[in-house]
Amino acid sequence: MVDEFDLIEKLLSRSRRLKHQGALIIPPGDDAALLSSIARPVITTDTHREGVHFRTEWQRHQEIGKKAVVITLSDLAASFATPVALFVNLSLPGHVTLENADALYDGIFEALDQYGCALGGGNISRAGELSLDMFAIGDCYSGYYPARSGARSGDGLYVSGPIGKAKAGLLALIHNDPDFPELVRAFKFPEARFDAAKILYAHGVRCVMDLSDGLIGDASHMARASSVTITLDPAALRLPPELTLFSRKYNLSPEKVAFEGGEEYELLFTCTPDVFARIENQLPSAFQVGIAAPFSETYLIQPFPEISSFQHGKKSY
Amino acid sequence: MVDEFDLIEKLLSRSRRLKHQGALIIPPGDDAALLSSIARPVITTDTHREGVHFRTEWQRHQEIGKKAVVITLSDLAASFATPVALFVNLSLPGHVTLENADALYDGIFEALDQYGCALGGGNISRAGELSLDMFAIGDCYSGYYPARSGARSGDGLYVSGPIGKAKAGLLALIHNDPDFPELVRAFKFPEARFDAAKILYAHGVRCVMDLSDGLIGDASHMARASSVTITLDPAALRLPPELTLFSRKYNLSPEKVAFEGGEEYELLFTCTPDVFARIENQLPSAFQVGIAAPFSETYLIQPFPEISSFQHGKKSY
Repeated sequence: MVDEFDLIEKLLSRSRRLKHQGALIIPPGDDAALLSSIARPVITTDTHREGVHFRTEWQRHQEIGKKAVVITLSDLAASFATPVALFVNLSLPGHVTLENADALYDGIFEALDQYGCALGGGNISRAGELSLDMFAIGDCYSGYYPARSGARSGDGLYVSGPIGKAKAGLLALIHNDPDFPELVRAFKFPEARFDAAKILYAHGVRCVMDLSDGLIGDASHMARASSVTITLDPAALRLPPELTLFSRKYNLSPEKVAFEGGEEYELLFTCTPDVFARIENQLPSAFQVGIAAPFSETYLIQPFPEISSFQHGKKSY
Repeated sequence: MVDEFDLIEKLLSRSRRLKHQGALIIPPGDDAALLSSIARPVITTDTHREGVHFRTEWQRHQEIGKKAVVITLSDLAASFATPVALFVNLSLPGHVTLENADALYDGIFEALDQYGCALGGGNISRAGELSLDMFAIGDCYSGYYPARSGARSGDGLYVSGPIGKAKAGLLALIHNDPDFPELVRAFKFPEARFDAAKILYAHGVRCVMDLSDGLIGDASHMARASSVTITLDPAALRLPPELTLFSRKYNLSPEKVAFEGGEEYELLFTCTPDVFARIENQLPSAFQVGIAAPFSETYLIQPFPEISSFQHGKKSY
């Protein structure tokens, strides 16, 4: 059984070596953390639970820790915010070895370093289930917040990069199929698209969210929040070749896998077609997936009515 | 089984009626919450798990929700900060009824209203165990942070109010003893001492923490962080009459119960005796429990060497 005091000692010592730990005036170890002034604080929270959001049979502990941080920070990217500090509550069952607990934090520190974020604090508690509750605070660099309610009639709907690969990767893991390592990689190692967000901000995009519930699920949230009707267009999709191969093997529609999707963490956004033409020059991975029109009867028009939203086992608010 | 979407709809609608919800520019419901500028952001996080931190046999769901918020905000009080927003991740087993989930949030909203804090967001996820992960952000109203490392040789060690009652209340619950309702109340309904913190701040107190691990546990943390030796003095204790009665019934030393304590959430602080004389005029519930001297061999001198620290099932950093 892991000694929590030893584990925390290690964490504190490692946190002091993080590049961006200087954002904390009072670092972890006191009753609370004190940060430098934040003009526009953006806060997001996420839960990652074994058996619901990850499986130790499929993912190494380091991969689990890293992905949990990336997913949490992704909401900051979608909010035009720079990461400042992350707080981690670990629920630790007795059967988790010290090696595995260390590896979880290896992944956490790797992501913190990559995205320039400090470790603000947290706790470790005994539990029956392994889970990570994360809270991230960032600083919004934009004078406006790119809300999901910002879609306007006449806007195009766009994604910042490929969709459907993470979903296909998850299916490959479920089928225990070793033939699609790139799809599995997309599932295991998403990126938080701070780079794409900066480009969208530079072009004044006002409606952004990150794709966690899949295109159909998230486009539906966006249409509802914006009171518009969004029509998804499968003809516009750019299908990754691995996704096409995978779909052929399992007799699936690749468009359907891409539309259902989930856990891509690409950015979903709307803007006018002329603004998108300029964005595309700087972000060639982006492409159109639909259009927004005045609300008429239904929020979302899409060719796969049997699909609603990716079931995450978690509802955020 | 509770429908999370319905529950979240209700939460969002209730959150809009909170007195201090205006602290949020973008309220819960988008990817993240956007708050107004915070000059000195203070952040703390806490985990509250069934069977470890609370028991539904002893506490109603409303009481559990309320106490969880109070405990979380208490760290802000001890940091000279005013609450701004609270984020709540609820892990919800299938057997929890809608009535009980509603009651949990009743308690959460009650505490948020009492302490003038907004609901910033959160999530609800399916789990085998009922637990609440909370994350609070506040604004430090002091130009310095009252760290646990601030104790100086020559300082007295003081508490803002009675100690030992919550521990005795917990023991009364364990013994299923109905004779000590006031002790049980102390266990179930702690207060976050923002009122006492304001007085300590006004008198320039520089070393403060909240009593969650019991006097022996927390005085030991403080002595270690401050590199001093703290001596606890049982003769100085003010023993609540109910604690004396309880201890007599169970053949316990009331001083020992008070020293071991835990979950009082009173403030533990140090200052010079002349400063304390002035504080006492405004905070008559406060009294001395020990003194700080130059470090010599051991961090804590106390008469009950068999006691170390209240075992919370949770280690914070």
